[in-house]
Amino acid sequence: MNDALKPVSGAVVAPRGFRAAGVFCDIKRLGTGKGSDKGAQPDLALLVSDIPAAVAGLFTTNQICAAPVKWDRDRVRAGRAQAVVINSGNANACTGPRGARDTRAMALAAARACGVSPELTLVASTGRIGVPLPMPRVRRGIRAAARKLANTPAAADAAAEAILTTDTVTKQLAVEFTLGGHAVRLGGMAKGAGMIHPGMSVTGARPPAGREGLHATMLAFLTCDAAIEPELLQDLLADAVAASFNRITVDGDMSTNDTVLLLANGLAENPVLRRRARTAAQRRDRATLAAALHHVCLELAKQMVRDGEGTTRLVTVRVSGARNAAEADAAARAVANSALVKTSWHGGDPNWGRIVDALGYSPATVVEEKVDIGYRARPGARPVYSLKGGRPTRTSYARLCAAVAGAEFELLIDLNLGRGEAVVYAADLTEAYVEFNKGDPADPASLGG
Amino acid sequence: MNDALKPVSGAVVAPRGFRAAGVFCDIKRLGTGKGSDKGAQPDLALLVSDIPAAVAGLFTTNQICAAPVKWDRDRVRAGRAQAVVINSGNANACTGPRGARDTRAMALAAARACGVSPELTLVASTGRIGVPLPMPRVRRGIRAAARKLANTPAAADAAAEAILTTDTVTKQLAVEFTLGGHAVRLGGMAKGAGMIHPGMSVTGARPPAGREGLHATMLAFLTCDAAIEPELLQDLLADAVAASFNRITVDGDMSTNDTVLLLANGLAENPVLRRRARTAAQRRDRATLAAALHHVCLELAKQMVRDGEGTTRLVTVRVSGARNAAEADAAARAVANSALVKTSWHGGDPNWGRIVDALGYSPATVVEEKVDIGYRARPGARPVYSLKGGRPTRTSYARLCAAVAGAEFELLIDLNLGRGEAVVYAADLTEAYVEFNKGDPADPASLGG
Repeated sequence: MNDALKPVSGAVVAPRGFRAAGVFCDIKRLGTGKGSDKGAQPDLALLVSDIPAAVAGLFTTNQICAAPVKWDRDRVRAGRAQAVVINSGNANACTGPRGARDTRAMALAAARACGVSPELTLVASTGRIGVPLPMPRVRRGIRAAARKLANTPAAADAAAEAILTTDTVTKQLAVEFTLGGHAVRLGGMAKGAGMIHPGMSVTGARPPAGREGLHATMLAFLTCDAAIEPELLQDLLADAVAASFNRITVDGDMSTNDTVLLLANGLAENPVLRRRARTAAQRRDRATLAAALHHVCLELAKQMVRDGEGTTRLVTVRVSGARNAAEADAAARAVANSALVKTSWHGGDPNWGRIVDALGYSPATVVEEKVDIGYRARPGARPVYSLKGGRPTRTSYARLCAAVAGAEFELLIDLNLGRGEAVVYAADLTEAYVEFNKGDPADPASLGG
Repeated sequence: MNDALKPVSGAVVAPRGFRAAGVFCDIKRLGTGKGSDKGAQPDLALLVSDIPAAVAGLFTTNQICAAPVKWDRDRVRAGRAQAVVINSGNANACTGPRGARDTRAMALAAARACGVSPELTLVASTGRIGVPLPMPRVRRGIRAAARKLANTPAAADAAAEAILTTDTVTKQLAVEFTLGGHAVRLGGMAKGAGMIHPGMSVTGARPPAGREGLHATMLAFLTCDAAIEPELLQDLLADAVAASFNRITVDGDMSTNDTVLLLANGLAENPVLRRRARTAAQRRDRATLAAALHHVCLELAKQMVRDGEGTTRLVTVRVSGARNAAEADAAARAVANSALVKTSWHGGDPNWGRIVDALGYSPATVVEEKVDIGYRARPGARPVYSLKGGRPTRTSYARLCAAVAGAEFELLIDLNLGRGEAVVYAADLTEAYVEFNKGDPADPASLGG
């Protein structure tokens, strides 16, 4: 953790002027939906700023994208937002014109219930693909949530719970730091679990070659009370996402709904941060905010991998010595998405043959006689190497096993061909993942996203 | 099966002038290796033609390739071969200069034992990566195998068993057909199971963009008694492999050792087939041989998928209506390699959301409103559609489930954008695959390929 960042409680309501709520409205039609389902996991969240805020967003680059993604992309372009309504249990993807109408109706209902403009209201959905939203329930849920909006940690918790699908724990965080002498807070909540290999961009345009084939439904909602121009906010969010959410993989499948939204309402009253920094102080403030965003996004991203479907290990795959950054990225992703490598991680097996194999079929240039492969049981620990210059080392099998025995370890790959570096945070592949995702034909509700 | 092709017994020794053998020499050091291991699965095979034959070969495009692959690539270029020695249990990959020396020593030992030239002797290995071959055992095995060479089905069976690793059954086939009035036979044996997503080429050069990221150790050895120029043999084999072995995937991991070899010794005494066909009869003969090769390669390839590690279903993914063939291929491979799609197949779940999701992140152009998705329980059966024009059909869930309930079914995807078509033969992803591959740190022998 950066020294300049202080952890604080409250997550998305930690910054001034934000309120949140989470309610159960039975979007999956589990029970009666009549309000007698006390204790059920909430499935609809609201997040509202007291005043219109600058907004930035990044969205899935999947060509098949859900109705709320299309709605938000258009709104985010204008640079201002005030409210976000989020439902789990239904992705509102592949739902045609009706899906678009339902997203618009969700925005209108949330805007009315919260007293904000529909044009300043964003929507996110996650869950089953291809099923129309149960709109009467959603409308009831929105009205109930608006009545519960609060800036308490309990309200933030309810919202963070409402956005979960197959996640087993909420993912939340907030930090405080200083901009221009003013205390500023940045909070966030996220969900992940499956279909996790995001490749998000601002416009949904396809990423450059070498970034293809990325793939989650991951949602993240960030709040901040800094005063900042929307253009700079978008730049900083894009950089932070590129180094965090877009660097994780659970299963290599990119979702139709991936969305990251960041609202900054300016209530901290710092001098407004602009794209063109004119003074050293402005540049310093920008770097501070960038570091805070990076920290919050990376922590939430890692929480997603740790809570991935069936995940038992989080492996940080660090590639260095590639001919360039794009090749480093391609090499890291080939290793991080190899079924054989991921199963060996699950087994606690320091198998280097499969890693070398994956490097060899990756688009990156690899020379067998140059490859080093090592492990670090903890960040900063001295690495133990299984391979040096393409040949097995004399390190004992027991020591190698010890290095990969923990719930988290680093895999260090040096191609020794150049200066390209990349990191990917990856989950292992487990029987539980398969068990979880194989579905149950006797239960049509197991269909979809 | 093509009417012109008649199944015959004998597999690789069905064509005139071929002998085979398989022996146990304990390459994995399971037992004493002193010959007291009767009944153990053979691990060393010989395949010999009575006279020098035309040869064609295709090899892994993995940049990290095993010593025998390098040896064979150089020999195949000359267009003639007479013997092949194959071991399982050890891939002789990532074994440095010693690996190259061991491959050469295997070729020399086999050449001497079989009375052929070392330059006409090819080598193939499969098994653990990164461990030196136990050469004294290999040499003993080669001498023992040479003494057992025979043209009997039992000898072919022993050879087909000797090349297996995690396969549970042998994969063999032979057919007879007519070329220029002469009866000709084509036989084959293969192994597959894991690391199966071949992308082979003649030279090992990387495939064109869009074919990257393919991935098995798969080995296949084909024998034929046709008289044919090596140049044409190579063309025909390349075409057959492109439509068979290069179209299968078990786990998306391409091996360091993938090899297909075809020897044609001319003992059928048909008029020699040449690259430049001059008469209609010559063109017809060439088409007949091409069809036979395609049939044998595709049957062996499908046997590999059916016997893939943990596989419970073989799914034929047919994409049509893509903008072009390359996009059809990319779309089919994205679906066939999606962890979420593969687990749904395992569960017998006709999930179309995950398929649409994978299509959307594939490099192929996809328009949501145009996509059709259907299933055929049997080739030629009337398809049942889950999606038409991007919207769910009214087909009952029970009917969709019935279409995907069998051990084999076809998935039909029409993008409705053009005329590009592609097919990929894919395995499902099962708990057994993970269990099988997670390795056992208590057992270092579970390391590697």
